[in-house]
Amino acid sequence: MRQVGLDEVRAIARGAAVLGTGGGGDPHIGALMAAAAIRTHGPVALTPLAELPDGAVVLPVAMMGAPTVMVEKIPSADQVGRAVDVLTRHLGLEVTHVACIEAGGVNSLVPVAAAAELGLPLVDADGMGRAFPELQQVLLTLTGVRATPMAVVDEKGNCAVIDTVDNRWAERLARSVTIDMGCSAMISNYAMDGAAARRGLVPGTLSLAASVGALLEPGVAGEDPASAVAAHLGGRVAVRAKVVDVERRTTTGFARGTAVLEGAGEHAGRRLTVDFQNENLVLRDGDHVLATAPDLICLLDTASGAAITTEQLRFGHRVSAVVAPCDPRWRTPEGLALAGPAAFGYPDDAVLLEGVPA
Amino acid sequence: MRQVGLDEVRAIARGAAVLGTGGGGDPHIGALMAAAAIRTHGPVALTPLAELPDGAVVLPVAMMGAPTVMVEKIPSADQVGRAVDVLTRHLGLEVTHVACIEAGGVNSLVPVAAAAELGLPLVDADGMGRAFPELQQVLLTLTGVRATPMAVVDEKGNCAVIDTVDNRWAERLARSVTIDMGCSAMISNYAMDGAAARRGLVPGTLSLAASVGALLEPGVAGEDPASAVAAHLGGRVAVRAKVVDVERRTTTGFARGTAVLEGAGEHAGRRLTVDFQNENLVLRDGDHVLATAPDLICLLDTASGAAITTEQLRFGHRVSAVVAPCDPRWRTPEGLALAGPAAFGYPDDAVLLEGVPA
Repeated sequence: MRQVGLDEVRAIARGAAVLGTGGGGDPHIGALMAAAAIRTHGPVALTPLAELPDGAVVLPVAMMGAPTVMVEKIPSADQVGRAVDVLTRHLGLEVTHVACIEAGGVNSLVPVAAAAELGLPLVDADGMGRAFPELQQVLLTLTGVRATPMAVVDEKGNCAVIDTVDNRWAERLARSVTIDMGCSAMISNYAMDGAAARRGLVPGTLSLAASVGALLEPGVAGEDPASAVAAHLGGRVAVRAKVVDVERRTTTGFARGTAVLEGAGEHAGRRLTVDFQNENLVLRDGDHVLATAPDLICLLDTASGAAITTEQLRFGHRVSAVVAPCDPRWRTPEGLALAGPAAFGYPDDAVLLEGVPA
Repeated sequence: MRQVGLDEVRAIARGAAVLGTGGGGDPHIGALMAAAAIRTHGPVALTPLAELPDGAVVLPVAMMGAPTVMVEKIPSADQVGRAVDVLTRHLGLEVTHVACIEAGGVNSLVPVAAAAELGLPLVDADGMGRAFPELQQVLLTLTGVRATPMAVVDEKGNCAVIDTVDNRWAERLARSVTIDMGCSAMISNYAMDGAAARRGLVPGTLSLAASVGALLEPGVAGEDPASAVAAHLGGRVAVRAKVVDVERRTTTGFARGTAVLEGAGEHAGRRLTVDFQNENLVLRDGDHVLATAPDLICLLDTASGAAITTEQLRFGHRVSAVVAPCDPRWRTPEGLALAGPAAFGYPDDAVLLEGVPA
């Protein structure tokens, strides 16, 4: 895939929502924003991570905030490019490439919209290989790229440029500003050169999203789309179930909560739960932990295979929980400290898929 | 007064704490910071507001946050100058003068420390003629000076540059960042040229503070220092009383609460209250309102005349409440809308001293 046009947007939206593991934003909104920008400015050129020159100036762009709010507060075209503009002006550098910080229905496609608006190529990569709720939770933190200076802009014209002593402080200050801006804001951060991008990003995320999305295309998806997705991602369908309750609260700028599932098949009669904070983080069978972050826990509609984001989860959904292995760098002690269950305040040890080649 | 040396620092600290109406920070801390900077860099030249050239580049500097926290978290010398440095770099301008945004024990003297650190003259003026809790509450808002771009820096090395659509949004975003930084931060905002400063600042505030401070010098203050201060400020001693209770909470970044006073003299046997939010805002005799912001409500120690800041207020203090007229621009409908009792959520109409020449 060398460019992103309207067809690719549809496929990426579908697939990135799977990789977003419940977070990363509503794919319908991401697709609307990217399609509008492509209709105005034409398709976006995609640069493979390996082809990025050392001296490239790469600026990721994303939406920050609670997905529950994002679905009601869609950014304007102007706002999409402005975060990059503000950061570029602050850095005094000429940006050469836009990038994705995470995979997700909105956050894989906001960068497409921004790249189209700004007339720049987009890097086929992302900072996580999935979505995570907090902004320090990227592989770039492990490879020493600073989150700041970072720009936070809202739809009203307010902006902040934040510069912090570490990436956790960037999360803290940017989160508060985002909450003030109405729980949803556009950000640009982790400015880096091409060499740093090649070291710290996950290659091929947009292509992967598009290929997952292709599996789920209406007419292509077979009887059991979840199994097809699981096989494609090297994972497995851990659970088939029905959603029977969703406890949900939007606090400290996140969509937090727990979904309660009634198991089917091998889990028939079992009470399963999924704890989420924007993303699905811990999957349990009663007290027994089946899977945790940083592995991917994707809730797919059992019939269509469509990813269900945490803000869409509701009673009656028939879901298949696909568990897929995360990028191997997340499985190191440093990676687990940054994005394992303890990083989210859960008492559990990380439970990761076994037999995954590193 | 053409310069601020160590003697002037002591007098300003004493007098600015009176003008701070309970807020603006602890004068002891302000004096420590200014004296340390003057000992290292020498006295600070004071520029009368009227002598400021049109093309001057004036940057106010202040501490933002809850005074209850400031007394335990004194900024470093490095932090004092850094807010101005960050804003200067962002603006790409060469700053010619430092200024005070409000009168108060810390916020009249932090600019002295900053001016000494930066080797710049200080303007003999301030933005309010008193202290107020929120950053849009300056006469500059009425004369059309933007609060942003503004810099917020902490002692750890974190900073944010905020740019907002109006001055109220600047308060909102900067307050959240300040809370994250530990409820106390150094700020620089309201960058303006000399002409705008002459239009929007209150002239002579530092000289006035020094002259009030001189009245209160040990050995100079007579039997009734509060009456001497009231006469000097064109006000009156409204109440003599003893503090019998202080209800206090540090919420949303402010020191809020109510002091309960037991009246003496003409108010003997009466229960008086002072509502505060960093500053003293409403003085009541039972349900009867005696005085409100924007007029100055200064609680002075009856014996020494020393101003008592809201965070120092405690059971047993014998106090004299001096009410003094605010700058006449605060008495306009626009001024009252910005800083009258309703602006702080109190249900009362403004009650202002009568017979004050405008």
